[in-house]
Amino acid sequence: MHDLHLKNVRPLGEANCDILIKNGVIVEIGKVADQPGMPVEDGGNAIVWPGLIDAHTHLDKTTWGMGWHENNREAVLRSRIDFERENRIALGMDPHIQSMRHAIGLAANGASHIRSHVDIDTTHGLSLVEGVERTREALKGIIDIELVAFPQSGVMGRPGTVELLDAALANGCEVLGGIDPCGIDRDPKGQLGVLFDLALKHGVDVDIHLHEVGDLGAFTMELIFERVRANGMQGRFGISHAFALGMSDTVRAGKLIDEIAELDIAILTTGAPSATVPSVKRLREAGVRTGAGCDGIRDTWGPWGQPDMMDRARIIGMKTAVRSDIDLRHMLELVSQGGADVMRLENYGVKVGAKADFTLLVGETVAHSVVEIAPRPMVVKGGRVIARNGTCIVDMP
Amino acid sequence: MHDLHLKNVRPLGEANCDILIKNGVIVEIGKVADQPGMPVEDGGNAIVWPGLIDAHTHLDKTTWGMGWHENNREAVLRSRIDFERENRIALGMDPHIQSMRHAIGLAANGASHIRSHVDIDTTHGLSLVEGVERTREALKGIIDIELVAFPQSGVMGRPGTVELLDAALANGCEVLGGIDPCGIDRDPKGQLGVLFDLALKHGVDVDIHLHEVGDLGAFTMELIFERVRANGMQGRFGISHAFALGMSDTVRAGKLIDEIAELDIAILTTGAPSATVPSVKRLREAGVRTGAGCDGIRDTWGPWGQPDMMDRARIIGMKTAVRSDIDLRHMLELVSQGGADVMRLENYGVKVGAKADFTLLVGETVAHSVVEIAPRPMVVKGGRVIARNGTCIVDMP
Ligand SMILES: [Zn+2]
Ligand SMILES: [Zn+2]
Repeated sequence: MHDLHLKNVRPLGEANCDILIKNGVIVEIGKVADQPGMPVEDGGNAIVWPGLIDAHTHLDKTTWGMGWHENNREAVLRSRIDFERENRIALGMDPHIQSMRHAIGLAANGASHIRSHVDIDTTHGLSLVEGVERTREALKGIIDIELVAFPQSGVMGRPGTVELLDAALANGCEVLGGIDPCGIDRDPKGQLGVLFDLALKHGVDVDIHLHEVGDLGAFTMELIFERVRANGMQGRFGISHAFALGMSDTVRAGKLIDEIAELDIAILTTGAPSATVPSVKRLREAGVRTGAGCDGIRDTWGPWGQPDMMDRARIIGMKTAVRSDIDLRHMLELVSQGGADVMRLENYGVKVGAKADFTLLVGETVAHSVVEIAPRPMVVKGGRVIARNGTCIVDMP
Repeated sequence: MHDLHLKNVRPLGEANCDILIKNGVIVEIGKVADQPGMPVEDGGNAIVWPGLIDAHTHLDKTTWGMGWHENNREAVLRSRIDFERENRIALGMDPHIQSMRHAIGLAANGASHIRSHVDIDTTHGLSLVEGVERTREALKGIIDIELVAFPQSGVMGRPGTVELLDAALANGCEVLGGIDPCGIDRDPKGQLGVLFDLALKHGVDVDIHLHEVGDLGAFTMELIFERVRANGMQGRFGISHAFALGMSDTVRAGKLIDEIAELDIAILTTGAPSATVPSVKRLREAGVRTGAGCDGIRDTWGPWGQPDMMDRARIIGMKTAVRSDIDLRHMLELVSQGGADVMRLENYGVKVGAKADFTLLVGETVAHSVVEIAPRPMVVKGGRVIARNGTCIVDMP
């Protein structure tokens, strides 16, 4: 781990001072005396913010860095899933190379941690997970990656998937994923039964994709609530997207949110611009652990997205009608502390005793930094400068 | 006007060739012989696309280039309007300087034309219009600016406003604006009566802000339809925002759109991320002239936005669930030909005989250029290179 004397910065947007890092840990914030023999950097009076966290992405899916992927296919969820599964290798989407590109991009833009879902299906077995695991190894010290065993093609409809999920959890995946128990599997009791059994067997958390909207999504949530309670899984379940919480009946959505808070279920949002999304503000008020992610970027599903959590903070902020400085600050907290809460990271933050994982931000104030489109001047991981002005010290393959 | 031999480009994304410009007009597209004495530029195989058009913005409102404007005020439309009117001068928002910054930014990012609403109220009289008119003069040959006399604070509630609108139309404003006849004025019959009277008197088009949603917005639209028909104003009325067309009752929205098409009413959208917005696809299918704009950027209302129509194309594309290459191309057409249709520009486009107003775009294909975030390599106006790599030849004041 690394030592660093970082001068001339504004921690969390506060008054200008220095940060002293020893052995990868922040040991002093304030006026720091010169340290003989220690590496020194000038932060240029930039804001220092804890490492950004992409708490919902898919490192194995992007076409980033490849040629342009032409897409004139129909916009149907099931078709997208099938097209990707059947064509990803033929298209040249090597899971290791593509996940390297995606993760290096995130690191270059200030991210310190990633939770990545990785497809597991009977066509590819665990090969996609293995590719992303190679990336996790290769990027040790640059960015931390947590893996979710993700049954993108469904759990119940394709025999052999349960065994693959079981094997993935025994071989490096820290979290169990799931997907639309009604919409994709047509068997909510079946899929949820499998998810809770596997989670209890392996002692892992669950993070389920729930695109189901309105009454259907609310129904699935209620099934989840029952099972979290029955299995004592409070604090260990997460719902990604949770589009149903964006239903127009805000009274009903509020009741769902209250139960989510009571069961300490985490919510992961991507602020999907064309969907109904949860009110981040309402979740915050209810005390729900809420993180955010870029989801798929420039993949076979669609062309949008950047490997950049500041870009995502802007997308979520615009979508959820954020205007005030305090709400802009909350957007930045969503893509940092929010993700840390979901992933239960320890020693996280810009404070004495925390790991020296942080990014510098351009802006007069914290609120300004959210709307100003500018590369991160410097990114520090474990006390080492791992990126400057949007370029990581590790080249993209 | 200027001559230029632009080599090595892909007009509209088609095969690589040259463009020859004489006296500000495109005279040849194809393999062009060397022209003795003529300025030559290498386009680097970039795509050439017609000048982008910001068909709905507010040049007098931005804080762009000023210090960060802190905003922790309540998010109420009426409060925003009042705060801005009462504080814009004290905050240092000089209408000429701010409109210069905004318009130069748009030009640097490939825009050739702007339709700008400019506030007219009894506090400021015509002074804001005069400031933006100075900008229009200063930027002749860089970007064309059309002005809308815009009663931001309402028409009926503040005596003297009608006379100011009348004076503005006699003194340089080409279009008459309006705003929420129900929501702001509480008097739809009154405001619409004034708007149609003034438009007929001055022979100008109308472009009304209509934030009213759902049934209320539909009601106001029906009042507009009646009056367009009764006054023979077909083809001369525009509705900005038209949030009501984003209502969940798509059958009713479809009927409104059909009548909009029949009356040749134009629609201007900003793709407002947190609002219900019209389906650009549905409008296109109905043959409605549809343009797009950045609206206010980083103003006292809110922090979002860039002076960049490619950024806006992305915002609208994400909001309206665009994914395919053909739909991405339509987004680019929306922010170019769409605005030209609304403003009824002549000799517009990348074709022989058209004015040489265009921008170069980075991308393997037209679709790719919409999602790739990169400065425009070169912007040409009237045959002159007026910007390179995001920097205009005119400095921001
Ligand atoms: Zn996902
Ligand atoms: Zn406007």
